Amino acid sequence: MTLPSRLVKSFKFCSIINPNFLKLGDTFKQTRVFSMPHLLDYSKVSLDFNPLHFDADCALTAGFQHPIVHGMLLASLFPRIISSHFPGAVYLSQNLQFKQPVYIGEEICGEVEAISMRDFKKKHLVKFSTRCFKQDSLLVLDGEAMAILPTLQLE
Amino acid sequence: MTLPSRLVKSFKFCSIINPNFLKLGDTFKQTRVFSMPHLLDYSKVSLDFNPLHFDADCALTAGFQHPIVHGMLLASLFPRIISSHFPGAVYLSQNLQFKQPVYIGEEICGEVEAISMRDFKKKHLVKFSTRCFKQDSLLVLDGEAMAILPTLQLE
Repeated sequence: MTLPSRLVKSFKFCSIINPNFLKLGDTFKQTRVFSMPHLLDYSKVSLDFNPLHFDADCALTAGFQHPIVHGMLLASLFPRIISSHFPGAVYLSQNLQFKQPVYIGEEICGEVEAISMRDFKKKHLVKFSTRCFKQDSLLVLDGEAMAILPTLQLE
Repeated sequence: MTLPSRLVKSFKFCSIINPNFLKLGDTFKQTRVFSMPHLLDYSKVSLDFNPLHFDADCALTAGFQHPIVHGMLLASLFPRIISSHFPGAVYLSQNLQFKQPVYIGEEICGEVEAISMRDFKKKHLVKFSTRCFKQDSLLVLDGEAMAILPTLQLE
């Protein structure tokens, strides 16, 4: 499909005047590598001492090669990514499906993509697709989040 | 409704021989009060420094009386409760709806209730209703979690 030149100019114009405003399809990524000290620190603050995260035999019995990173620590990537671009963002909901184990030392890429947005009381209600990958393209955590952003301007 | 005496005996017998095994409807509760040091420790390990959790003006602009506890820190109550009764539990999914803000110093009661269960590869696939309350009965966080338990025996 070829767009009328008037519309093409209009799109270009929008992208020129609002280069730093959130648009549908915008994707933000951050990578992390979790270490044993991270897991210990997380356990201390969450009080979650599930041996699955520390004990090799427990992890093996559960079907994993090694102790695994806490799921909620992994999921913390999503509000971190959103709020680093939109300070003051308020989380309304999050769903999480844990697809694959994440081991200490693995590089994890968290990705957050704006998939719907509407104005809401002078703020912005935005739904994000929230996913984590390892080994480039292996999906380890899938889900969606809904947040209220105070502005669509990116930091 | 009056149960036949044979059934009553059967129920009693089950409860006598399996007093420490998970049953549908079993509910586990744990309370926590989050402090500013907890929020700081959580921010350090999650790298989530959203000013909503530390800056009074930012919280006010977002419509809250004070800075609020990180949602994912609150949500960490659920795997903590489940794994404290079932060490080695593996999280498969969690959904979260944040209903009310949680402030520093508020007593939060996390509740996890077994709402469905089935055998799964010599283990047990259990769906839990997962909720947090403050002020006794004010729902602040609602959702469900699915986990694989290595055993139904309670610790």
